[in-house]
Amino acid sequence: MGLEVYFKFILSFALILIAARIGGEIAERYLKQPPVLGELVAGIIISPFALGGLIFGGDPIILNFATVHGGFGLDEFHAMEIISQIAVVTLLFVAGVETDVRAFLRYGWTGAGVAVGGVILPFALGYLIIWALYSEIGMTGFLFMGAVLTATSIGVTVRILMDMRRLQTKEGITILVGAVIDDIIGIVILSVVISTAQTGELDIGHAFQIGAIGLVAWFALLIVGVRFNKYISMIFLNPFKRSGTMPIVAIIIGFLIAYLVTLAELHPVVGAYVAGLMFAATREREEILHGIRPIMLFLAPFFFCYLGMQVDLSFFVSAPIIAIIAVILIVLATLGKIIGCYIPARLVGRFSHTSSLMVGVGMVPRGEVGLIIAGAGLLALGEPFRDLFAAAVLVSIATTLITPVMLKPLFRRAPAAGPEPESSLREDQESGII
Amino acid sequence: MGLEVYFKFILSFALILIAARIGGEIAERYLKQPPVLGELVAGIIISPFALGGLIFGGDPIILNFATVHGGFGLDEFHAMEIISQIAVVTLLFVAGVETDVRAFLRYGWTGAGVAVGGVILPFALGYLIIWALYSEIGMTGFLFMGAVLTATSIGVTVRILMDMRRLQTKEGITILVGAVIDDIIGIVILSVVISTAQTGELDIGHAFQIGAIGLVAWFALLIVGVRFNKYISMIFLNPFKRSGTMPIVAIIIGFLIAYLVTLAELHPVVGAYVAGLMFAATREREEILHGIRPIMLFLAPFFFCYLGMQVDLSFFVSAPIIAIIAVILIVLATLGKIIGCYIPARLVGRFSHTSSLMVGVGMVPRGEVGLIIAGAGLLALGEPFRDLFAAAVLVSIATTLITPVMLKPLFRRAPAAGPEPESSLREDQESGII
Repeated sequence: MGLEVYFKFILSFALILIAARIGGEIAERYLKQPPVLGELVAGIIISPFALGGLIFGGDPIILNFATVHGGFGLDEFHAMEIISQIAVVTLLFVAGVETDVRAFLRYGWTGAGVAVGGVILPFALGYLIIWALYSEIGMTGFLFMGAVLTATSIGVTVRILMDMRRLQTKEGITILVGAVIDDIIGIVILSVVISTAQTGELDIGHAFQIGAIGLVAWFALLIVGVRFNKYISMIFLNPFKRSGTMPIVAIIIGFLIAYLVTLAELHPVVGAYVAGLMFAATREREEILHGIRPIMLFLAPFFFCYLGMQVDLSFFVSAPIIAIIAVILIVLATLGKIIGCYIPARLVGRFSHTSSLMVGVGMVPRGEVGLIIAGAGLLALGEPFRDLFAAAVLVSIATTLITPVMLKPLFRRAPAAGPEPESSLREDQESGII
Repeated sequence: MGLEVYFKFILSFALILIAARIGGEIAERYLKQPPVLGELVAGIIISPFALGGLIFGGDPIILNFATVHGGFGLDEFHAMEIISQIAVVTLLFVAGVETDVRAFLRYGWTGAGVAVGGVILPFALGYLIIWALYSEIGMTGFLFMGAVLTATSIGVTVRILMDMRRLQTKEGITILVGAVIDDIIGIVILSVVISTAQTGELDIGHAFQIGAIGLVAWFALLIVGVRFNKYISMIFLNPFKRSGTMPIVAIIIGFLIAYLVTLAELHPVVGAYVAGLMFAATREREEILHGIRPIMLFLAPFFFCYLGMQVDLSFFVSAPIIAIIAVILIVLATLGKIIGCYIPARLVGRFSHTSSLMVGVGMVPRGEVGLIIAGAGLLALGEPFRDLFAAAVLVSIATTLITPVMLKPLFRRAPAAGPEPESSLREDQESGII
């Protein structure tokens, strides 16, 4: 009946969620780490390159073997990827609704500074190290690896902050503002790099045009949400209160906006987050969260486990030189981001040493954004870039895995961090600082 | 970057859910009908054969044009179909958890009788009318159309009962038991028909073997759930209470069982429903429902709207003879099911006239099951079957659309239905009948 393929997808879906939950539970209970770490590692373990390949090796559907192999197939279509997209859009929408909008605006400049600092230093380090160690790839290659190192994964960052219950702290909000603006800067860099790869010339003008459109689109949505939230309630939410589907309508609008921002070349997660912010300012906020958080709890682990499934660790055993370059890149990616974000947090935001460090560490994960840029590089440069692509994948995963491990002691240290005693926004508000 | 295709899927997903919500709201508020009716009609309206084709005609992704065209493409892969499958599995799992297990067992024999009666009469009518009006298709064709008429869509039936808040009545439970057993009988018939089409001979033995395995698998799961629910709680639920993911673990197990029953050739929705029943007997029932109902509210409309999107009404304008056959089939499908189920409900269950009528009407919708059987027929018989396939599609949709319209006055009449005054199970229990 041709339906077996869908049944196998149901199995894949169940297996991925089961692995994610077991991984999450182990991380939380025994390693005292955020569940997202366990979900990522579970993904690496069940990937077609590891356990999944051993058990279901011959099957092109279960655990998505056929489509994961080879350059992460960004040039072909993955059915599992759409579920992953739905999951991450849901996650970012929930994060948006959970955000304190006034605090978001308050830390706007600090976040912008953090984003800029967190782009400049890693980009320079990435460009220079590839120029020094792998010069045969040429300038476009240097540019792509620089771009990989500038990325920040909003999805991973949000999830770690959620797991640690730090989304609502001033550090958490600064990280989020930074990650959103980082995405816009990332688009500008990527479009410059791609057009350079295609034409051999730099077209800064066009890139800045894209960046400006993205920034305006994003800012316009934010202002509409903050200023006109009464009308949002009146037009979009009130009519659906009687049938009890109001929270569902809110998240559907989130999906629509997630798509609409892609027309301004932004990533859908940026749209989902801003859409969430629009509803965060409404009176219906709590009711919306109540109705959509279970959807996020159900789907989000899929995204992270699927992210882990795209990693082939065995590659680095067979190519030790790339592994060494990858390790150097990981160190630079981590230090570059921490230092690049620490300085603006300290200078623009006047954050304490510990708070600035938290912001820097929170911006470290490259996650899926790093993978996307690396995939674009592979598409543009082809075979010569394949080794660097593998290294870039390792950078994305390693920075994602180490971030929660580094953040945890910092958050534990935070309450006793000297002259700025409380790092929680609520406590700042109570003491009248804000 | 090759990501546009995923962005378009986000748009498709959002548009389908928006259309479904608007349709559902109109049905509920202005037509006083269950939302599922509006979701189905919304699907027909935005389908590639109607509005969707006009607006996004050239796009192979948005609203899933490329994959919907041509024989509903059961022989190819639909990315949207996996979301639809996830949605319907979620719906049936929630329905299972919501079911009163003891009542389910109490109405087991009545439900079995209803299923058998609801298969025999429609099958005979379908076979005979095609033999009389469309004899050129041959015996395999008569058998397929008979099979189409025996189907009952558990998904549609559950949703209508949920929308009308009648899932927990004795009529609701009898309908559900009937629909589940109907699915098992349907497998037997379908495998007989398909093997007849392939070999030209009837292989009743093999078919009954399949049926027996299905019945045993399903019954074993049910008994495990009823007898050993303490162990289910202890092993599968308790460990995940601390992290707050217990309801998520329950629904993941539902997905796993939904797949496992397909190994016994049952439809995944049957597995999802029985998995839900397993958890319905646990102490954690309310907490599970609280955590998974929002997921169902989010996804279920997708399934129904997508179902509607597979209908091409224009076909019947261009082929009036098929339209006439379809109308006759719709009348026979409706009357056959109502009468075929009414008699066992009255005789085996000793239900009142109105209650028996409710059970009969509740079994009428063919929904996706009818489409699946018709698709299998098209696969087996090819082009000669195409006209009857179109008629079968209309039967599936029409029986689905008219059911809520017929049920509504019955349910309104129910409380004053003579000697058996209350049709609600709770009221039966209070008055000491059960």
